[in-house]
Amino acid sequence: MANLDVFFNPKAIAVIGASRTPGKVGHAILENVKSTFRGKIYPINPNTNEILGLECFSSLKEIKEPIDLAIIAIPADLVKGAVEDCIKRKIKGVIIISAGFSEIGEKEKELALKKLSKNIRMIGPNCIGTLSPSKLDTMFIDRKKLKRPSEGSIGFITQSGAVGACLIDLASYEGVGVSKFISIGNKIDVDEIELLEYLGKDVETRCIVLYLESTEKGAELINISKKIVPNKPIIAFKSGKTEKGSKAVASHTGALAGTEEVFSAAFKQSGIIEAETTEDILDYAKILSTQPGLKSNKIAILTNGGGFGVIATDYAIKSGFDVSNLSKDAENALKKFLPKYASYNNPVDLTGDATTERYEKSINAILKDKEVSGLVIITLMQLPTVDDELLDVLRDAKMHGKPIIICAMGGAYTQERTKKLEKLGLPVYSTPERAIRAMKALLDYGKITKK
Amino acid sequence: MANLDVFFNPKAIAVIGASRTPGKVGHAILENVKSTFRGKIYPINPNTNEILGLECFSSLKEIKEPIDLAIIAIPADLVKGAVEDCIKRKIKGVIIISAGFSEIGEKEKELALKKLSKNIRMIGPNCIGTLSPSKLDTMFIDRKKLKRPSEGSIGFITQSGAVGACLIDLASYEGVGVSKFISIGNKIDVDEIELLEYLGKDVETRCIVLYLESTEKGAELINISKKIVPNKPIIAFKSGKTEKGSKAVASHTGALAGTEEVFSAAFKQSGIIEAETTEDILDYAKILSTQPGLKSNKIAILTNGGGFGVIATDYAIKSGFDVSNLSKDAENALKKFLPKYASYNNPVDLTGDATTERYEKSINAILKDKEVSGLVIITLMQLPTVDDELLDVLRDAKMHGKPIIICAMGGAYTQERTKKLEKLGLPVYSTPERAIRAMKALLDYGKITKK
Repeated sequence: MANLDVFFNPKAIAVIGASRTPGKVGHAILENVKSTFRGKIYPINPNTNEILGLECFSSLKEIKEPIDLAIIAIPADLVKGAVEDCIKRKIKGVIIISAGFSEIGEKEKELALKKLSKNIRMIGPNCIGTLSPSKLDTMFIDRKKLKRPSEGSIGFITQSGAVGACLIDLASYEGVGVSKFISIGNKIDVDEIELLEYLGKDVETRCIVLYLESTEKGAELINISKKIVPNKPIIAFKSGKTEKGSKAVASHTGALAGTEEVFSAAFKQSGIIEAETTEDILDYAKILSTQPGLKSNKIAILTNGGGFGVIATDYAIKSGFDVSNLSKDAENALKKFLPKYASYNNPVDLTGDATTERYEKSINAILKDKEVSGLVIITLMQLPTVDDELLDVLRDAKMHGKPIIICAMGGAYTQERTKKLEKLGLPVYSTPERAIRAMKALLDYGKITKK
Repeated sequence: MANLDVFFNPKAIAVIGASRTPGKVGHAILENVKSTFRGKIYPINPNTNEILGLECFSSLKEIKEPIDLAIIAIPADLVKGAVEDCIKRKIKGVIIISAGFSEIGEKEKELALKKLSKNIRMIGPNCIGTLSPSKLDTMFIDRKKLKRPSEGSIGFITQSGAVGACLIDLASYEGVGVSKFISIGNKIDVDEIELLEYLGKDVETRCIVLYLESTEKGAELINISKKIVPNKPIIAFKSGKTEKGSKAVASHTGALAGTEEVFSAAFKQSGIIEAETTEDILDYAKILSTQPGLKSNKIAILTNGGGFGVIATDYAIKSGFDVSNLSKDAENALKKFLPKYASYNNPVDLTGDATTERYEKSINAILKDKEVSGLVIITLMQLPTVDDELLDVLRDAKMHGKPIIICAMGGAYTQERTKKLEKLGLPVYSTPERAIRAMKALLDYGKITKK
C-alpha cells in the first residue's frame, strides 16, 4: 500500500525515452514533468546530451544519485529490458506509457512484464500517465492542448486514458480541482483496488471517481468500496454495458467486460454512486467533493427566472424530492422584503428584477427553515439588476452548513462567473436538470451512509 | 399572417420609454436596437433631447415621418395609453416589454390591453423582446452580459424569456446560429400558433424550437404542426410537467399548464420532437437544422479514443441504433491503410496516434458503405498527432450527403475548435451520450416524415 507513495511523492525521476522532438510522446512527458516536479529529473536518451535544458543520460547506469520513479515511453519490445534495468537500479516504481501489449493481442509480452512486478511497482502499460496538479505531471499530452485542473479534492482512477484525460481537461475548464489522477491502462500491477484503498486514505481526496471498463476483482471491489464509502463517496462509471460495447472493450483493452446488471448490482451493494452518463461523472463529483450531506429529501428552489424554477421543480419532483411550501416563518420572513409580484412559495421566484440584496435576504430566510435540507439557487447572471456582489453572497451561503448548488446557463459572461464560483467550492450546473441530478446523487449518498 | 413581418422587417422604430440611464431596461433596448437596426430610430422620452446620440422626442405626435414598429418599456399602468397612441399614429406592431399584467394577477389590465389587438399587432406583454441577429435586436438585456448568436437557421419561440434568452446566449457561445427569436410573454395577441405558421414559411428558418409552459390552443397547435413538420422539424420543450411545477407556472405566467401526458401525446400526434431536458433543446436543434435525414438506423462510430467508442456504442445500441460491423468492402478499404492495432469493426478505433490522414481515409471508406446511414466522429483534439487540418477533413465529409456529427470533450483548446466546426455547420457534442441522443432525434424526425 504505502509503496504507492512513490508514484505521487517521488524524490528523483528518470524519463526513459525522453525525446528532443516537440510533438513526440517522450518530449511531452519530459516537458510536463519539468513544469511540475521540483525534485531531480534525469532524461534518458542515448542520442543527445541535453533536452529542454536538462542534462541527458544514455542509460540509467550513468546516473550515480538515487532515483525512485521512472517513466517509460519506448517501443513495447524494449520495455521489459528497461524495467529490468530499473529493478537493478533499485527504482521503486515505473509508469509505463508504452502501448503494444495485451490490448493488441500481445499477451505473452504483457505476461513477461507482469512477472517483474514482484520486484517493482508498475502503473500501465498502455496508459497516459498520472497527475498530482501541484506536484507531478507524467502525462504525455501537451499542457496547452489539454489543460490541467488546479489542486482540488477529486481523485480520478481511469481505465480509459482518453476519457479520463478529457474529463480532467473539462474539470480545468470549469474551475474544478483534482487531487490525483491515475490512468491505469492494462493494469498489470497497480489496479483499481489498490488505488481505491490508497485514495480512500488520502487526506487530499474527498471524493473518488472510478472509470471502469472491466475488472477481474469484483469481490475485492465490493469489499474495499464498502470500507471507503462511509467516509468518502465513490462515483463509478462502467462502460461496455451492451454486448457490442463489451466487444469493443475487448478489442480496446483486451479485457472482458461484465454485463451491465452485474456491475450495477455490485455498485449498489458497495454503496458506490453509479454515473449513468459521462456528463454525470463530473457533475456528481463536483457536489460530492464540496457539499455537506443532505439530511432529508426536502429542498428549496430559488430563482430570478420563473421558467427555470418550473423546470427545476418538475425535475426535482420526478427525482423524488419534496418541493413543498416553506414553513410559515420562512414565508413571513420573505414577505417582509419581497415585492408583491414575487412568489413566496417553493420555488421562490424573485423575478427578473432581483437584486443581490434580494438574493441574500431570501437565501438566509430559506436556509433558516429547519425543514429545508438543501438549496438550489438559479441565477440568470445576465439580468440588469444582478451584479458581481452576488458571488460573495453565494459564497457566504455556505455558512449555513446545508448543501447549496447553483444553476447558471449562458455564454462567456456567465461562464466566467461560474468558474469563480467553482473555485469558491460551489458546484455550478448549466441546466436545472443537471443541478437536480447532482442533488439526487448527494441524497443517494446520504441514504447509503445512514444505513 | 403577413402582418407579422413588421416585427422582423420594420422600416422605422419608436422606443417608448427610452432611458438615458445605463442599466435601465429602456436604455438597454435603445442601445440594442441602435446596434442592429439600419432604419430610422425614434427614442421617446419627455425628459431629454438626446439619448445615445439619437434625437429624442417627448411623444409620438412630434414625429412626422412614418413609423411601423414601437417597443414599449414603461410602467404597466401607462401601457394602454401608449398603445392607443400607436394606433392613432398607424403603427402596425408593438412589442410590449413591460410586466405587471396577468402574471401578477392584473387580469383586468391585461384584458383592456387585449381589446386593442383588433387595431394593432402586439407581442407580449411581460416579454424580453425579439431578435433577428443581423437585422434587429429589441431585447432588454445588455449585449455584453448576454451575447447574441450569429445569423443562422434555428427559429426560437419561447414562453419563458429567461430560458429562451439563456439558450440563445449558450448558442452564441457554442457558435450556433439563430434565424429569429421571439419571447411571447403573456401572448395577448401574437402567440405560438401564429409564430409557428410564420416560421414554418420563413426561408431563413430550417428548424423551429418551441419552449412552452401552457397553451389554450391545443388543437390548433396540432394542426399547424402537422402542416409544418413534413418540411421543417419542430422541437418542443414543455415545462410545468408535474402538479407542483404546473402551479409554479400559474404563479409565473398566470396561465394553466396541462399535464405531461396530454402534451406528450399532442406532440407525438403532431410529429413534434419533444426535448426531455433543457440540454436536449439546443442539442436537437443543432443537428436538425444542419444535417440531412438519416435513412436507416445503421450508424458507424469512428474514434481516436477507444473508451469513447465504447460509451457511444453502448448508448447507441440502447437508443435503438444498429452498430453492426461494416461491409466487407469498407473493412477491406480500412485494412489497406490502418495499422494492425486499430479496430476495423464498428466502432472503428483509429487509436491514440491517429493522424488527420487516417481520419480522412477512414471517413471516406466508412461513408462509401451503403449500409451506413450516418456517422458519429469522436475526436480527442488534444492528442499529439491531431492537427487543425482535421477541421477541413470534417467539413469535407459533409459532401457524402449523410448526417455527420462530432463528439469532442475538453477544455479551452477543444472548445475553440468546436466553435469553428459549429460555424461550418457540423454539430458538436461534448459527450458521446449527447451526440447519440441528438442522432436519435434525427432518426425520429426521419420516421415522422416517412409516414
